[in-house]
Formats: sequence, structure tokens, C-alpha cells
Amino acid sequence: MTAEKKIAGWKKAVEGELERILSRGDTLLDQAMRDSVLCGGKRFRPLLVLGAADAFGATAKSALPFACAVELIHNYSLIHDDLPSIDNDDYRRGRPSCHKAFGEDIALLAGDSLLTMAFEVMAAAEMPRSRLSRKERVIREIAQLAGAEGMIGGQLLDITFSAENAGEPGIRELMLKKTGALIVASVRAGAVLGGAGQTALKAVTKFGENIGLAFQVRDDLHDATEKGRGARPPRPNYATLFGLDEARCLLTNSIGSALEALQSASIESAVLRRLARQLSDVQQ
Amino acid sequence: MTAEKKIAGWKKAVEGELERILSRGDTLLDQAMRDSVLCGGKRFRPLLVLGAADAFGATAKSALPFACAVELIHNYSLIHDDLPSIDNDDYRRGRPSCHKAFGEDIALLAGDSLLTMAFEVMAAAEMPRSRLSRKERVIREIAQLAGAEGMIGGQLLDITFSAENAGEPGIRELMLKKTGALIVASVRAGAVLGGAGQTALKAVTKFGENIGLAFQVRDDLHDATEKGRGARPPRPNYATLFGLDEARCLLTNSIGSALEALQSASIESAVLRRLARQLSDVQQ
Repeated sequence: MTAEKKIAGWKKAVEGELERILSRGDTLLDQAMRDSVLCGGKRFRPLLVLGAADAFGATAKSALPFACAVELIHNYSLIHDDLPSIDNDDYRRGRPSCHKAFGEDIALLAGDSLLTMAFEVMAAAEMPRSRLSRKERVIREIAQLAGAEGMIGGQLLDITFSAENAGEPGIRELMLKKTGALIVASVRAGAVLGGAGQTALKAVTKFGENIGLAFQVRDDLHDATEKGRGARPPRPNYATLFGLDEARCLLTNSIGSALEALQSASIESAVLRRLARQLSDVQQ
Repeated sequence: MTAEKKIAGWKKAVEGELERILSRGDTLLDQAMRDSVLCGGKRFRPLLVLGAADAFGATAKSALPFACAVELIHNYSLIHDDLPSIDNDDYRRGRPSCHKAFGEDIALLAGDSLLTMAFEVMAAAEMPRSRLSRKERVIREIAQLAGAEGMIGGQLLDITFSAENAGEPGIRELMLKKTGALIVASVRAGAVLGGAGQTALKAVTKFGENIGLAFQVRDDLHDATEKGRGARPPRPNYATLFGLDEARCLLTNSIGSALEALQSASIESAVLRRLARQLSDVQQ
């Protein structure tokens, strides 16, 4: 099967499972959770989980709960980031953000619920008894990389960011944590589920870090060149601090380093390669 | 050893472990997390975990990570509940609430981090391979009872509460979810870790539900009779809706039902009995 077909099939499986998970009730809270998650995202992180799982021989079915979990975590982080006390964003994916549509209190609880649900879904994942230690390792790693030392730590760097003090290493650390940590968690999750060894895990981590950088700088390039974004200037980012040319250079180099990391450990995955290469396609 | 001495020893162990867990870094976020958790709470939920674990033969050492996890979850819920968009409380335990001390953005992230950390701590708990399925069950149950169908669902009921429509069953459901769910999760966690069977788990759940009711109505009685609380009236609760006498009656009955539940399943635990009886001691 071609990488493209695999990706399309997995994306459908992820959509279906997310819908199933989020169809429990119909309170305002349930509606807010569904509205945020089931709105046609790219499902980039779930596809990384499934791509890495496939590369190391775990089935998509066994990895699906973890793929959905990282998407739930991603969506909780978007809802909380959009809140007035953080980014104060009225729009998300061209639609009113969660707190604009449902109120700040419901948005706060919707984020909390999605984060909590992510761990419920992972803990409930079916797994043969002999592989339970892989499962607990994945849960631990995802929690660590999503927490104060990972994604939330990146959010902290973002809200306390000072362009004067930070410089290139500072903005790179911000990107690696805020965006990279959950992406690293995603590829590592798939690899751990497939039983990858230490060398392969190192390579997969390097792949994830570079994909994280590429993903974030691509976002910044979008923001910098997007028309009609409104008056509010973006937070300082790689593109605004170092210019569009430097940003494009980082994008290209990061994708190159990501692909190299796979090759260096002989990790054969047309899907992971494709997901990486797709990031070079910046609409400008 | 007397129940009193056991409780004192366990409380010390919980304090020590929480300090260790929260000593990773010293960012503003780390400070906010520590400030919220390490301020001398009663550690009621961790003691329920350890009491139930002990009653079913699991060691305090093996249950300690789960005891700490429910306390982290409890504290995240307090921080988020205090935020302006929910309860807008400036004080917590007589000190400035997290967002008053650290700002709304940091308080939001501190709550998110504590919730995430709770799952990291549970996933990292040491457990013999043969008991990994107990561990995954506890993680799943805690996530479920802390989420949209449990504690957060109770928070939703609270913010959308209408005194006219709710009546006694409505306020009871609110209390059972908002306060009861995490308390049920705590006693069930200890019992599952100790390998409790179906009948015992049912009894323990009934114990937890009644303890939850008692705990919440005791809180409401405190609020109703406290001097100098300030001008802001409390949200409608059992005591304000049905009067102090009815509330005292619910408190006494719930503690009685909790003790009865233990006895009915022959669960011998001087600690759990003591923790239940302590709730009758309302300062008025």
C-alpha cells in the first residue's frame, strides 16, 4: 500500500475513534469538547504515532488509543492557549475559539476534560499482558513530555519570553518544548509500542525534535505572510526575530535532519518520510 | 499500631513524597505548583488511598504514588475552580489563591501541570509485573472519576446549577460528582491495589460516596456558620437550600451509611472508620 493510502486510512480510523470517544453525553461540556476536536484538524500527531508504530511492527489498531490521546492533549492545549489570560484568541481554524463559543468557564473545563480523557483512553487501551510495561512506559512518557518539563514548560517560556534575553538558543528551546515535546511523545509512543530499542528510540527522538522545529517555524512563516490576520501582532517568533529567509532555512534544514535521523538508524517508513516532507509545503 | 499513629506516619510520608515530586525546578510555574500543594492541607484523599490499600493488604509504599496523585488532582481542581471565570475566589486556605499570587496565566498552567503530573506519577509507580493490570485499572478509574463524567462533570453541574430545577436529587448528584467522585476514586484505588474483589469494591464505593456527601455538606455547614466570610454569598448548596438542621442530619446519616458499608462487607479498618468519624466534628 502506498504511504498516501495508508495515511488516508489511518486518518479515517482516527476520526472515527475520536467521534466514538467523544459521543458519551450531550451536556454543554460534551458539546464544547466535540466542537473543538471534531472540526477537521490534520491529525498530524496521531499520524506520527501510527506511522512510528507501523515502522516498528505494532498494529494501527493497538496504537489507535494512543494516537487519539495525543490529539486530545493537543486540542486541550489549544483551548487553554486561546483563553483570554494566555493568547486571548477569538478564532481558531477560522471559527470562534472554544471560550468565544461556549464561555470561559466551559472552555476551561473542556480543556481539563480532554486532558483527563487522554489518560483514561490510554489506560483503557487493550494490550496483551506481556506488553503492559510498554503501555505504562508510553503513558509515563506522554505525561512527562506534555507536562511542566515539556509542552507546558514551552507555554511558560512563551508567555515569559523576552526577545532581548533569549536569542537563538532561547527561541529554539521554546519551539522544542512548546511544539516539539508532544511531537516527540507521539513518535516515541509508536516506537515504544512496537518495541523499538535504544538506538532506534534515539533516532526517533531526533526525528521528532526536528519535525517539531519544522512544524513550528512553518506555522510562524504562515503567520508572517498571511494576509488579513487582523491588527494583533504575533508573539515574537523565529520568523519575526530572524527574518523570513532564516526561518525558511531552518525549515528546510530541520526536515533534512529529520529524514537523516531515520536513515542513520535504518528506520524504513515511507509514511514518516512523507509526513516530514509535507511540512516543506508552505503556502505563501 | 493505633489508627492515629498510622495516620500520622502516612501523612508524613505523603508530605515527603509530594515535596520530592515537586522539587524538580524553580520556574514561576514550579513555584506556583509548590505553593498550592505544599501548604499543609489535611491530605484527606491520600489518607483514604493508603487506608483502603492497608485494609486490603497493599503496602503504603506501593500505594504512595497513587495517594500523591489524587492530592495533585485535588489541588489542580482547586486552582482552576478559584479562577475568575469559575468561582473568582481571591483566597484559599486563608492565603491568596494561585491566580492572585502568580497571575491567571501561571495559575492555569499550574493546574494543567499538576493534573498531567498526577498521571506521570501513577504511570511511573513501581509495581511487580504480575500487578501491572491493577495499576492500569487504577489509572483508568481515577481518570474516569476525575473527568467529565465525574469531578469535572460535578463542576459543570455547579456552574450551571439552578436552585429551582434541581431539588434534593439534583444537589445530591452535584455533591456526589464534584466532591464524591475523587473520594470514591481514592478509596477504590487503594482497594484495587490490594486486590479487593467485586463485593468489597461495591462496599468501598458506597463508603466513598457517603464520605463524599459528608465531606461536602460539612464544608457547606462551615461556610454557612463561618463568621466574617465577606460579602459574597456562597453558591446554593445543601445547607442554604434545605437549612442547617437538614444539613446536619445528612452529615450524620452519611457517616453512618459509610461505616455501615464497611461493616456489611466485613472490611476491618480502624483508619477508614476514624477518617469517616472525624467528619462529624464540625466547628460551629
